[in-house]
Amino acid sequence: MYELGVVYRNIARADRQAADRLGAFGSATVHEAMGRLGLLKPCMRPIYAGAQVSGTAVTVLLHPGDNWMLHVAAEQIRGGDIVVAAVTADCTDGYFGDLLATSFKARGARALIIDAGVRDVKTLTEMSFPVWSKAISSKGTIKATVGSVNIPVVCAGALVTPGDVIVADDDGVVCVPASRAAEVAEAAAAREANEGAKRAKLAAGVLGLDMYGMREPLARAGLRYVD
Amino acid sequence: MYELGVVYRNIARADRQAADRLGAFGSATVHEAMGRLGLLKPCMRPIYAGAQVSGTAVTVLLHPGDNWMLHVAAEQIRGGDIVVAAVTADCTDGYFGDLLATSFKARGARALIIDAGVRDVKTLTEMSFPVWSKAISSKGTIKATVGSVNIPVVCAGALVTPGDVIVADDDGVVCVPASRAAEVAEAAAAREANEGAKRAKLAAGVLGLDMYGMREPLARAGLRYVD
Amino acid sequence: MYELGVVYRNIARADRQAADRLGAFGSATVHEAMGRLGLLKPCMRPIYAGAQVSGTAVTVLLHPGDNWMLHVAAEQIRGGDIVVAAVTADCTDGYFGDLLATSFKARGARALIIDAGVRDVKTLTEMSFPVWSKAISSKGTIKATVGSVNIPVVCAGALVTPGDVIVADDDGVVCVPASRAAEVAEAAAAREANEGAKRAKLAAGVLGLDMYGMREPLARAGLRYVD
Amino acid sequence: MYELGVVYRNIARADRQAADRLGAFGSATVHEAMGRLGLLKPCMRPIYAGAQVSGTAVTVLLHPGDNWMLHVAAEQIRGGDIVVAAVTADCTDGYFGDLLATSFKARGARALIIDAGVRDVKTLTEMSFPVWSKAISSKGTIKATVGSVNIPVVCAGALVTPGDVIVADDDGVVCVPASRAAEVAEAAAAREANEGAKRAKLAAGVLGLDMYGMREPLARAGLRYVD
Amino acid sequence: MYELGVVYRNIARADRQAADRLGAFGSATVHEAMGRLGLLKPCMRPIYAGAQVSGTAVTVLLHPGDNWMLHVAAEQIRGGDIVVAAVTADCTDGYFGDLLATSFKARGARALIIDAGVRDVKTLTEMSFPVWSKAISSKGTIKATVGSVNIPVVCAGALVTPGDVIVADDDGVVCVPASRAAEVAEAAAAREANEGAKRAKLAAGVLGLDMYGMREPLARAGLRYVD
Amino acid sequence: MYELGVVYRNIARADRQAADRLGAFGSATVHEAMGRLGLLKPCMRPIYAGAQVSGTAVTVLLHPGDNWMLHVAAEQIRGGDIVVAAVTADCTDGYFGDLLATSFKARGARALIIDAGVRDVKTLTEMSFPVWSKAISSKGTIKATVGSVNIPVVCAGALVTPGDVIVADDDGVVCVPASRAAEVAEAAAAREANEGAKRAKLAAGVLGLDMYGMREPLARAGLRYVD
Repeated sequence: MYELGVVYRNIARADRQAADRLGAFGSATVHEAMGRLGLLKPCMRPIYAGAQVSGTAVTVLLHPGDNWMLHVAAEQIRGGDIVVAAVTADCTDGYFGDLLATSFKARGARALIIDAGVRDVKTLTEMSFPVWSKAISSKGTIKATVGSVNIPVVCAGALVTPGDVIVADDDGVVCVPASRAAEVAEAAAAREANEGAKRAKLAAGVLGLDMYGMREPLARAGLRYVD
Repeated sequence: MYELGVVYRNIARADRQAADRLGAFGSATVHEAMGRLGLLKPCMRPIYAGAQVSGTAVTVLLHPGDNWMLHVAAEQIRGGDIVVAAVTADCTDGYFGDLLATSFKARGARALIIDAGVRDVKTLTEMSFPVWSKAISSKGTIKATVGSVNIPVVCAGALVTPGDVIVADDDGVVCVPASRAAEVAEAAAAREANEGAKRAKLAAGVLGLDMYGMREPLARAGLRYVD
Repeated sequence: MYELGVVYRNIARADRQAADRLGAFGSATVHEAMGRLGLLKPCMRPIYAGAQVSGTAVTVLLHPGDNWMLHVAAEQIRGGDIVVAAVTADCTDGYFGDLLATSFKARGARALIIDAGVRDVKTLTEMSFPVWSKAISSKGTIKATVGSVNIPVVCAGALVTPGDVIVADDDGVVCVPASRAAEVAEAAAAREANEGAKRAKLAAGVLGLDMYGMREPLARAGLRYVD
Repeated sequence: MYELGVVYRNIARADRQAADRLGAFGSATVHEAMGRLGLLKPCMRPIYAGAQVSGTAVTVLLHPGDNWMLHVAAEQIRGGDIVVAAVTADCTDGYFGDLLATSFKARGARALIIDAGVRDVKTLTEMSFPVWSKAISSKGTIKATVGSVNIPVVCAGALVTPGDVIVADDDGVVCVPASRAAEVAEAAAAREANEGAKRAKLAAGVLGLDMYGMREPLARAGLRYVD
Repeated sequence: MYELGVVYRNIARADRQAADRLGAFGSATVHEAMGRLGLLKPCMRPIYAGAQVSGTAVTVLLHPGDNWMLHVAAEQIRGGDIVVAAVTADCTDGYFGDLLATSFKARGARALIIDAGVRDVKTLTEMSFPVWSKAISSKGTIKATVGSVNIPVVCAGALVTPGDVIVADDDGVVCVPASRAAEVAEAAAAREANEGAKRAKLAAGVLGLDMYGMREPLARAGLRYVD
Repeated sequence: MYELGVVYRNIARADRQAADRLGAFGSATVHEAMGRLGLLKPCMRPIYAGAQVSGTAVTVLLHPGDNWMLHVAAEQIRGGDIVVAAVTADCTDGYFGDLLATSFKARGARALIIDAGVRDVKTLTEMSFPVWSKAISSKGTIKATVGSVNIPVVCAGALVTPGDVIVADDDGVVCVPASRAAEVAEAAAAREANEGAKRAKLAAGVLGLDMYGMREPLARAGLRYVD
């Protein structure tokens, strides 16, 4: 967050296999497996329903109303990356549209996460290029001031370091530090392994109160029943 | 709102037939028939379009970031209920996901209305279990502090007493006190009975100004036309 | 904004052909072609995805919680108009539903832009009558106080003069002054003419950095690369 | 919340002594003593710093942009009351100014709590008539639609029943049900009795970790120290 | 709002005497006298309490994060003016600080109204240069893109034409069109003339219900009393 | 942000002299000297006007509605520190009151910066213990879940690493990385050195247009004057 005018070309991307594996779990399971950390604010919404992706972060720091650095970022994208764009002050302008999406996609990007606005959403939907943003806006941007590429950024309240794994779906966006990717994927898998059996029990009418053994701790916490 | 650590097992549910009948009118008609009362704030949005339900309220009071009482509430659900969840302070965490939805559905719940966040929305949509919430968030919750079940709660600005009728659709969520359910259903039916004829006239180009006899009161209120 | 209780019957509508032509470009292209002016705030969202319209503005000034003047406005609609409704103070009530939509449609309106709430959105979607609003709400309104029709209004932060061209789609809503409609349509066409070639290049992997000649100005602005 | 057009003249006010005693503790202590319930949303702010009051609630349900019922409420005020005003939909209009304040004060009201806007704040400050509101706005209101006086209302997210005790200061506004006023005053007194000794210890440099015996439970919860 | 890159040097300022007279009434009285029009959104707050001013508007249209045009506006200020600054998209940056305030004050400006942020508020307070803004922010701005001076602008939801009268105090900010300044000042004076007598009556305990003759219309509107 | 349940006892604090020197410049000058980086969101406001402080950051990561770790943080405070508290999800609860302030002050803390709520603001003001927060709320918090102390945190959108310099005043809060403290203090001093002369010129009526040589670049950017 504290360096302007610099592009880091070489970043340590998280292990590709771990990054891909995390995408299959979805953001809620990954967030739990992380210990309930790494969530971007829930104002970050997908422009269309149903997309579920993961990838390694290429980060960009932008200025309000200025998308110049997105073009600079395009060159740093490798296959399997997700671009994560932060802005130095709150802004809802439409920084990104179908031309940049065409470029990002050609470079191998899987998605854009931007703490600002996006436009051309109908075309982006047709292109199946998913974007999570806090706004949709026709408003275009200028190209006047340099920011940075591949420095640590704060995007929608979460710290994202270049190379971290981003997991995004209809529930939101989670950042997993590169160093923890494999471990979190393990934890997520363990978590999910149990869910099928639980789901079957609950579907059969077993209560969580019994399945999780909650009655005794609830009573100890003072819960009482009145008929 | 003013009692913690208690679960009321026996609540007086609104007349089932009236509750079901209200659902067919939708929230806007019911809200009008109520005298424009009972609306939850419009930040309460459905997780998918097209759901239209009604049911009797089982209420829950939760703490911020703590979904323990949703498990307690599950046991109190009967067929035809809708769970209405309030929180003691503003919170957007994802209190409810596909496992709890499986349990609620197995118990006979028709929907969840929660003044907080929800997650696993893709799965909930596939399950056709509708939720109205003010946020969608991957963020999970803890199970540490007891709240209450089936006490009067304030959910998104509206007072909901256990057993009241909840009507929810794409336009929002309305609460009808149990004691007024039959009367409001009557009023809604009367209101709707007129609408077909009105719609036909308006579709034929008749103006509301004429159909409702507004020209004279508008002139009296001082409206003037300039060519 | 500064006149109450008056309806202007004769307004100078923008050239129909220019108005229609602008719709085909969409709000983002038109906003750029305007010099990045005329955008309504991005809180204005369509009630369903995919609608793209343009038309000439019939304006209405409403009071909070009072939709009386929408009936007055209906009479002033001509084929190809879009009604633009402003309110004298922030309000999210559902001013407009399927009956008024039936009337507006019968009069030839193409859409409603309202800096407040709307209801019956499921029916409006089935009718293919698009509305851009800042809220969806079941809450109805009274008919007690006169406003005005066809005076200049401020709608979602933009000045709209009767007869101006409104362009609205999934990206938002833009207002083009009637006097500039033809010129802006020209500029939008010129802008779009280039886009096909650019898109092809970007899709082939050419970078915007090269295509737009940005490397030199970026270096001049101090951007440096670190390996 | 569910009755329009009615004024209840006889309400059961909380015990005067308990109501007065609660005011001395302030809203934070009372809120703790209540079990962390009864808080109005923190958007409710005083128009000037330093006021600290308590009183028994006279409630009013208003419509957006319409302050008619505040005049009706004035007649129901008795010495020691605080007027609590709710609105059927979000509104920031300035419902209350110096004339109404003069009337309320003459009737014995100690304050106004309004989930909307207020005006003439300079004069109200000079009059030492405190108001807690979510907005300050010059915008006046009409007198067209009846609401109710002395029915249960939801004000800024909290249920307030006529006669409940309201405690308000720079930290916010808390509602104590009339039936619990004496008990909560006791609990607040007990709470405060300990605070002097605690404050002295903390001022002397004793850590809360030691004073409250937190080190062991923190270790049990997994906290570890790294040098 | 629809012209960029232009500075109008000659504007028709409202009658100075009427402009000055309006300031004495304050924003609430003027807003009522206007027929409840012309109010800027209540998010516009003074940086310090107690300032009450009026003056003729010099308008500026700015871009997000760019305060270049404030320097251009300074040259157009004459004694008795108030600068009204709008931005083409939402922005909270601190566009204005003590240096610009020194310049504006030296040119004869009485205040700044800005739909964005301001900084150096401690110094501005010491200088007694009042500012109404929607934010306070340390964040500085660039000087890269031209806007306009003395074109009609939308500031915080209100249309302000150069030369209009601005009235601002602790209750908010109101814009009076230049052509209506004298008439509105008359209406405000008439309004205020009555207030002394009313205030005395209300202070003596007379109810607004009786003083305004509201009992009969309330009964007609259906209000009923329950003992 | 990505480690729970750990307290780092040894942190590298910024140079004390540089930290103290930065405080004298205020947040706006420091933010400019930083290259317009490091600002916390402007929703962070002081609980009373006039405080201006700087210090080295002791950081805390809290959970929503849980202030346990503030007690843990107290032990890590050294004279000249400022505690910076982040929360894992949006929360406005009153995490901090007069008892904790007494403890923090006794340990040598100069201020608290918290991305949540605070209470007992009247007492904190009397104690001259300044707090910058996004809310004031009577609502207390529990002590159930461990967070961390002295890990990098995101507070109100800014990354704060333990030991960084915090500068806070009426304009907001800025974070200066420890490694840049001396350099930024130099830049701020250089900036301020010029301001006296500029201020004198502007006070004498010289325009920024002339003093900064803006007329030529404005003309080049297309600005034109109309009489």
